[in-house]
Amino acid sequence: MKSERVPLAQSSIAAAFVLGGLVLLVSLAAHAQTDPLPSWNDGAAKKAIATFVQQTTTQGSPQFVPPAERVATFDQDGTLWVEHPIYSQVVYCLDRVPALVKAKPELASVEPFKTVMTGNREAIAKLPMKDLEKILAATLTGMSVEEFRSEVATWLAEAKDPRWKRPYTDLTYQPMQEVLKYLRDNGYKTYIVTGGGQDFVRVYAEATYGVPPEQVVGTAGGTKFGYAKDGKPFLTKEPKLLLNDDKAGKPEGIHLMIGRRPYAAFGNSNGDREMLEYTKAGDGARLAMILLHDDAKREYAYGPAKGLPNSKVGTFTQSLYDEAMRQGWIVISMKDDWKRIFAFEQ
Amino acid sequence: MKSERVPLAQSSIAAAFVLGGLVLLVSLAAHAQTDPLPSWNDGAAKKAIATFVQQTTTQGSPQFVPPAERVATFDQDGTLWVEHPIYSQVVYCLDRVPALVKAKPELASVEPFKTVMTGNREAIAKLPMKDLEKILAATLTGMSVEEFRSEVATWLAEAKDPRWKRPYTDLTYQPMQEVLKYLRDNGYKTYIVTGGGQDFVRVYAEATYGVPPEQVVGTAGGTKFGYAKDGKPFLTKEPKLLLNDDKAGKPEGIHLMIGRRPYAAFGNSNGDREMLEYTKAGDGARLAMILLHDDAKREYAYGPAKGLPNSKVGTFTQSLYDEAMRQGWIVISMKDDWKRIFAFEQ
Repeated sequence: MKSERVPLAQSSIAAAFVLGGLVLLVSLAAHAQTDPLPSWNDGAAKKAIATFVQQTTTQGSPQFVPPAERVATFDQDGTLWVEHPIYSQVVYCLDRVPALVKAKPELASVEPFKTVMTGNREAIAKLPMKDLEKILAATLTGMSVEEFRSEVATWLAEAKDPRWKRPYTDLTYQPMQEVLKYLRDNGYKTYIVTGGGQDFVRVYAEATYGVPPEQVVGTAGGTKFGYAKDGKPFLTKEPKLLLNDDKAGKPEGIHLMIGRRPYAAFGNSNGDREMLEYTKAGDGARLAMILLHDDAKREYAYGPAKGLPNSKVGTFTQSLYDEAMRQGWIVISMKDDWKRIFAFEQ
Repeated sequence: MKSERVPLAQSSIAAAFVLGGLVLLVSLAAHAQTDPLPSWNDGAAKKAIATFVQQTTTQGSPQFVPPAERVATFDQDGTLWVEHPIYSQVVYCLDRVPALVKAKPELASVEPFKTVMTGNREAIAKLPMKDLEKILAATLTGMSVEEFRSEVATWLAEAKDPRWKRPYTDLTYQPMQEVLKYLRDNGYKTYIVTGGGQDFVRVYAEATYGVPPEQVVGTAGGTKFGYAKDGKPFLTKEPKLLLNDDKAGKPEGIHLMIGRRPYAAFGNSNGDREMLEYTKAGDGARLAMILLHDDAKREYAYGPAKGLPNSKVGTFTQSLYDEAMRQGWIVISMKDDWKRIFAFEQ
């Protein structure tokens, strides 16, 4: 009996070891498969997202939110994709000027179109806001909504960001794409709430972020209903501002277009302050997150919060940072919290 | 052999008869169970709805519409619920005047509030539009969005339509409820697109029609973001019109709030003309339906199309009727197409 026992015990131990190893491997594989945020480093930011989802979607949790009420809002420029050195939509408007001048040659000798046509970047960058507004109005209004959609789609297919030499729609942040998907997989409706043009963002939001046109809230102008010569009705984009979807305009736009207070909101600048305040002021578990661009090497670094360089595009002041700390918003450090920035980095 | 054949043949026939009967019964039962529009009489209107759904949702159909693009829009007053003798929202505003005067006693001696406080229906009905607008502004703006929601909810729970002695939310048309559900069951997003107040309709649309707040497009005023004394942010309803969601404002509102052209649209008056034109002008199968109130006995009869009595509320002119015929819109006759009007009729 003794001589048999030892091998048996040994083989049991061996079997247990093999099984244990298998269990460990299977469990690791399951974990790797199911980590919904693989581009996030472990830390407070990643944990806050996971905790929020668990609290609000677990039946019986005191913070449970019924599926119909699960709304999450995301700023776009600087939160979902690159906004430096300048918003992509402004590049679009400047790029459209030659076609505009071709269609209306009288503009060639009129400012600010004359300066834009020189291609002198330094001179263009110095154009006063009033001139920039003229360019926006001329390139974003006056055409049918279908013409506009087609012009934007053509530009998106051809234009490339000068630093990464890639289409602008490649410059979305992979960690935020994971958050969008993770929230949708848990019954959240994900909305974009952007200071950018609603019609502009709608052209690519579905393909780029999985966000359909009806879930894009942005700065919106009026349209005018009319009839073509053949009697077909169409809508023309008018130079009449209906919603300036920035700062206080963000919660106002959320009320207008969604009619529910978000449970989670994501931003990156002082333009998102009121949206984050409004979100966090609701009952139950509310998640407010704000992205700090502190990674000059992999993307850009700007604030001026935390001593980062000042920036007119995507300003994130120290007072906003202090409010975030006070109100329990989670600051995401691009440098520390994100394993990678873009999907194309491997 | 012969003596056996006859009974065999007979029993086969009998078996076939029984089986056939069973098949027939099962098929009738299945039909009864699955008729998605049981309150509709068989006819062109019912058939048009079924054909549209089949064409746009059958994989491989030349008119197939991908689920994400399935949008159907419904006018509310007179299309989904009773609008006569006057829009329910106007009744709400008049009913709110006593509470308003109680809060601001100085209004008691000021017109038009003075007249409303007399309760003299005839005098109230004669108030000019300018006075009615004063009452709407005073009862629909100036409070927080939460206060407004709560005031409307309280009224809805208490107020009763004088003819049917039932809450207004009982006065929805059962056949249209079936269309809403039938379209949703086939992957359509159903939107309300109403000249009524967006915030007003949102209070009950989810419980009453299964239409969530973010799918209610209506006449919308601006809100103003601000802070309470305790620092909590809130939105105040402002007397500033952003969207007059009637006539040309309906396709304009659809573009603003949805960003997609509907595949199906339902209306009942000249206020819906542009929405129906815009819908029908799209490619592929598009369904435009317009309800004619020609049932004085079970509901109301008004036009003046088809020689029906004229009406300021829900005007349906002969020229609109002629356009419907010309453009291939389907006119629904309340009298002929609907087996019953309300769910509470049995």
